[in-house]
Amino acid sequence: MEILNKLRFDDEGLIPAIIQDAGNNQVLMLAYMNREAVQKTFYSKKTHFWSRSRKKLWMKGETSGHFQNVREMHLDCDQDTLLIKVEQIGAACHDGYRSCFYRRISQGGDWEITEKQVFVPGEVYGSKA
Amino acid sequence: MEILNKLRFDDEGLIPAIIQDAGNNQVLMLAYMNREAVQKTFYSKKTHFWSRSRKKLWMKGETSGHFQNVREMHLDCDQDTLLIKVEQIGAACHDGYRSCFYRRISQGGDWEITEKQVFVPGEVYGSKA
Repeated sequence: MEILNKLRFDDEGLIPAIIQDAGNNQVLMLAYMNREAVQKTFYSKKTHFWSRSRKKLWMKGETSGHFQNVREMHLDCDQDTLLIKVEQIGAACHDGYRSCFYRRISQGGDWEITEKQVFVPGEVYGSKA
Repeated sequence: MEILNKLRFDDEGLIPAIIQDAGNNQVLMLAYMNREAVQKTFYSKKTHFWSRSRKKLWMKGETSGHFQNVREMHLDCDQDTLLIKVEQIGAACHDGYRSCFYRRISQGGDWEITEKQVFVPGEVYGSKA
């Protein structure tokens, strides 16, 4: 795949991917891809990632049904970050929020939740949540 | 600073920060912060980053004048990624585009430029560009 040669993976063979809602431009999450995840994402049009904690490839939505249908893939100037615009089914965050960035840092240095939960994690992920 | 204790820095003491235009929600760039960069960004309300290639702290705009005035700072569910909404002066990308993600990956696996250059790098950065 030609495009893989243009990407700069880090020492662990990973590249960060920013996932953005193609509809309203909300930033949903950041996750990491290895070469296989990039290929699967590009060809299947569903986002795939490398889980650094579980050390395995996964498809977003494989457990929750909250798939991300790929609309556009962009690459940055340094060729070491991807920006992927998606149609988000359900919600991106396993905590039940549409975006993983549901906490804002307040002036005082605390954080406050700025989004509404759209699902209850236990009902989607069962005992794993 | 209380908030620093809530952030999960990686093995190199860094955390990735997605920079988003607070006005139109365009994703402008991804860069990395160490603890000092987070503090300086939080208190000065101008983005500061750790350059992994130059191994030094820098303030966005210190050479170009293209500062980023911080409007909001968000933290993700895993506490290991920041999303910072800014007012971008000029353009974010040293290649002269408003966003670093000015290239889209085409169906054929090539890329195409999807933005217009808003400045000529040589005129802003001189011989360093």
